[in-house]
Amino acid sequence: MVTSMDILTVELGSRSYPILIGQGLLRDPRSFTESVRARDVLIVSNTTVAPLYLSTLEAALRPRRTVATLLPDGESYKTFDTVARILDVLVANRFGRDCAVVALGGGVVGDMAGFAAAIYQRGVEFVQVPTTLLAQVDSAVGGKTGVNHPGGKNLIGAFHQPAAVVSDTATLSTLAPRELRAGLAEVVKYGLIRDPEFFAWLEQRAEALLAGEPGALAHAVRRSCEIKAAIVGQDEREHGERALLNLGHTFGHAIESATGYGRWLHGEAVGAGMVMAARMSHAGGLLPRGDLQRLVGLIERLGLPVSAPDVPAETMLEHMRIDKKVLGGRIRLVLLQRIGAAIVTADYDQQLLLRTLEGQPAGAS
Amino acid sequence: MVTSMDILTVELGSRSYPILIGQGLLRDPRSFTESVRARDVLIVSNTTVAPLYLSTLEAALRPRRTVATLLPDGESYKTFDTVARILDVLVANRFGRDCAVVALGGGVVGDMAGFAAAIYQRGVEFVQVPTTLLAQVDSAVGGKTGVNHPGGKNLIGAFHQPAAVVSDTATLSTLAPRELRAGLAEVVKYGLIRDPEFFAWLEQRAEALLAGEPGALAHAVRRSCEIKAAIVGQDEREHGERALLNLGHTFGHAIESATGYGRWLHGEAVGAGMVMAARMSHAGGLLPRGDLQRLVGLIERLGLPVSAPDVPAETMLEHMRIDKKVLGGRIRLVLLQRIGAAIVTADYDQQLLLRTLEGQPAGAS
Repeated sequence: MVTSMDILTVELGSRSYPILIGQGLLRDPRSFTESVRARDVLIVSNTTVAPLYLSTLEAALRPRRTVATLLPDGESYKTFDTVARILDVLVANRFGRDCAVVALGGGVVGDMAGFAAAIYQRGVEFVQVPTTLLAQVDSAVGGKTGVNHPGGKNLIGAFHQPAAVVSDTATLSTLAPRELRAGLAEVVKYGLIRDPEFFAWLEQRAEALLAGEPGALAHAVRRSCEIKAAIVGQDEREHGERALLNLGHTFGHAIESATGYGRWLHGEAVGAGMVMAARMSHAGGLLPRGDLQRLVGLIERLGLPVSAPDVPAETMLEHMRIDKKVLGGRIRLVLLQRIGAAIVTADYDQQLLLRTLEGQPAGAS
Repeated sequence: MVTSMDILTVELGSRSYPILIGQGLLRDPRSFTESVRARDVLIVSNTTVAPLYLSTLEAALRPRRTVATLLPDGESYKTFDTVARILDVLVANRFGRDCAVVALGGGVVGDMAGFAAAIYQRGVEFVQVPTTLLAQVDSAVGGKTGVNHPGGKNLIGAFHQPAAVVSDTATLSTLAPRELRAGLAEVVKYGLIRDPEFFAWLEQRAEALLAGEPGALAHAVRRSCEIKAAIVGQDEREHGERALLNLGHTFGHAIESATGYGRWLHGEAVGAGMVMAARMSHAGGLLPRGDLQRLVGLIERLGLPVSAPDVPAETMLEHMRIDKKVLGGRIRLVLLQRIGAAIVTADYDQQLLLRTLEGQPAGAS
């Protein structure tokens, strides 16, 4: 039933795991033969995704004993309290340390299911079955799990690598257009930080991607996962290179947090955040104007915002200060040198940051 | 000011860490020079311990910026909600990923502070400053952190190794006699599972230990930590040998859980639990009668309970089934072959377990 499948590997020694990418994987029991060794499986999904795919996944997981728990849909529910409810279900069903948790849904479901798997009985098996573009290209890969705190995004969490990521690209056909666009922001990020050819390919194929053309989406997922897997394999715990993946995210998290989780989709905030980082990079003399213009052009064509919401710069700064990227009191930012090359730095002009947050960085000096 | 100090090491590759044991360590800034590299430090303690030692620890940590948060005292507060309050304090003080959490107190404080450190910003530095015998010989060493769930003890948690354990044996002089006795149960455990000479030494020195004789207590702490460090170094995540440390704990957790957390001290439940495991081992033909009698004699002399509370066997069994030691639906138990040798097994007579829970295992066949 699966027409074609790619298998990538995230190389992490004894914790290495495969990323399976293909059309129809969700309905094929073989997708889970290797990765779900448990007899008892808790499927965590949400009220939007479950009506579409839950029964298919349950069938594919037979004869394992499955229990499903459905979360409300949306970033505003990504809280410690929701994770506590997942844990209650695990306890109520007397699942042991040898159970597995399977996340069926987008990034919010994956982050919370993964966090619950990380802290139930000090860690149980976890499998990601991402059904959104954003989750397939980013959040399902790399082991970051967690929840938001009223004081900041993803402040509470754990590193807990999945045993496998099963990305059925057929699920992208049911994705709302706004969700598809938000996912493309993260795809653009990979080109920006690491791969100018992929960025150029995205410029050529923007309309095909927006139209949901399966071949184009499959390539975008595969190339994004290749880049992320390579970076995570080098720096699992984000002591160095992995921080490049935060391009646009320090700005983006502040947007999400300042406007209240759920108003902006994560990918939308990252889209605007990448443009802000690029404008600041250009104004600081780091990024050529042509590269900035290409980025703004692509983000606009993808239907994503290219500027911050109308929030005072000081408010944005407050939200950035509690972000996890703060070290020694100094906000570290990912800035761009050119399309395909980014740096992590805390060495920048503070005034330039403030002007960027006000939406008007000066031109390159 | 420190008269003598022992340094042991828990060997875990890049996560190896020292255990410092000595009189007066708490008031000596040098105890923290290597291990607390952070500028921002959250001290987590409780309302019983803080009046005795908090200001001393704060002075020793200067010039670092310290914030203290005090938890209510007792196992009944070892919950997800209490950990959420610790996290709120970290966020409210804008502590970054480069902060440290220091636990000042017993096992409950250490388990919760460690769990908060494990999940704040996906993991920050953590230092244990145990002030009870039980914490110094057991819970502060080995990286197990977590909280209880109404359905079972320590069901929610994480492995998060400390950067150091600083055990000031002078703090044992302020310990309530009941707490001291409870700690001695875990000390007896080390002799039982691994070291018959240490067990014989405990038989000789029981009264000195109960009287709080500093030299005797220091030796008990040191030898217990040596044994635990060796086992944890071999099997950090409890895939094998580490499970021996659970001797008496599956029974003990069921006692604590069935009677409501806090009624029995953890060490009291472990004391009774070890006797139950020994009685079952003897009744099953595994443990000689003489060894059982020596254990019962020592536990009694230490003023610890030697039998389960008046709870129906079926209720106890229910609580044991949700314990983390359950794999594949079968309760694994640590049983004794002789003083100094224990085994982990799921291969035992179920009727024997029931009769043990009823307080009357049959004699050896």
